[in-house]
Amino acid sequence: MAAESLSPRLPVTDRTRHRRLREQGSLDRAELEAILDAGFVCHLGVVAEGRPLVVPTVYGRDERQLYLHGSVASRSLAGGTPVCVTVTHVDGLVLARSVFEHGVNYRSAVVHGTARKVTDPEEKLAGLRLLSEHAAPGQWSYARRPNRRELAATTLLALSLEEASVKIRTGAPDDGDGPDAELGLWAGVLPLTSAWGTPVTDPALPPNTPVPGHIARREGTRHG
Amino acid sequence: MAAESLSPRLPVTDRTRHRRLREQGSLDRAELEAILDAGFVCHLGVVAEGRPLVVPTVYGRDERQLYLHGSVASRSLAGGTPVCVTVTHVDGLVLARSVFEHGVNYRSAVVHGTARKVTDPEEKLAGLRLLSEHAAPGQWSYARRPNRRELAATTLLALSLEEASVKIRTGAPDDGDGPDAELGLWAGVLPLTSAWGTPVTDPALPPNTPVPGHIARREGTRHG
Repeated sequence: MAAESLSPRLPVTDRTRHRRLREQGSLDRAELEAILDAGFVCHLGVVAEGRPLVVPTVYGRDERQLYLHGSVASRSLAGGTPVCVTVTHVDGLVLARSVFEHGVNYRSAVVHGTARKVTDPEEKLAGLRLLSEHAAPGQWSYARRPNRRELAATTLLALSLEEASVKIRTGAPDDGDGPDAELGLWAGVLPLTSAWGTPVTDPALPPNTPVPGHIARREGTRHG
Repeated sequence: MAAESLSPRLPVTDRTRHRRLREQGSLDRAELEAILDAGFVCHLGVVAEGRPLVVPTVYGRDERQLYLHGSVASRSLAGGTPVCVTVTHVDGLVLARSVFEHGVNYRSAVVHGTARKVTDPEEKLAGLRLLSEHAAPGQWSYARRPNRRELAATTLLALSLEEASVKIRTGAPDDGDGPDAELGLWAGVLPLTSAWGTPVTDPALPPNTPVPGHIARREGTRHG
């Protein structure tokens, strides 16, 4: 974690160059960060015995790196493995006048790099804290923190945020001024939103156990 | 699309054997189908120049195969490429007494196989129909269907549903009867739900254009 910060403009590489037209590619690092901050589950891709493997896992980040819970893919991650981490938010269905113009409003970030297993206990604790606070803010102070044995049993991966590709599609269908507009069909967007529900107390506890404020106040707020 | 149907019990292979304990692996094909049917965006993993690439795309299915919109990964998919397709639904945060026991309630399906580019126009049209009706039921009859030029411009992939791994975690944290229960902390689940919102009419149309029933009635229904 060097002191110098990453470029606010994402670098264009063979892997991150945008090739398709309909979606908007962004080279703005702030957009990358906003997409990462809006979620907590990513899809981690590795090559295992020559074949792709894609598994969901949780993540957190600091200015320079993504931290990933790596146990799900730990067999395939022995040292310096190339990985691809994708975070996608689906914001709605784009319902056009023709099936061909149908699509999805979404925000996605695709991070390319080489995963490093975090072994230094101090960095591991700091990384797990980022991961924990990213998914469940306030729990790091509230719940019991990992002990030495638990730390050792956790696989944490770090991945530089340097090389990433961001794509965003928003708004109405694209065929509102084309020949299909003459069809007189309805067209538009069906939005999809995700929100936190009412906390469900562990049945092992008395049912009237008060829900801590840092959890209770997420109810009804939007996720993603 | 042979007539014989796939086994209702998912086969256990080197790639699909469940190794971790905390999640529940399922070998029930009906669970696989339920997870696939609850979503419409998957994460498609391929190996591109020796490195993993994970991109979101839309899908549909029949009894035997997944159909995927393949344009996003088309450069990396020249004939008989091994792919991994993962569909994940995040159902909630598992907030335990210790950070170590924190987790996610989720349902995921990981399909392994070799993608085939669909070239037969009849199968392509049928596959696109499955894909379209999966994401936006009713639109295949309502909107203008793909013409020959549009069909040719669409990359559709087919992937057998034979080899797949299903994992599901539900319910309360696991530390309600361990030593951490003595800490007297609240523990439980913070549910996450996804729902369709109010349709937004394309601004190119008069604002009072009626929303067709097959779209309007999805408002407020749950997704995922």
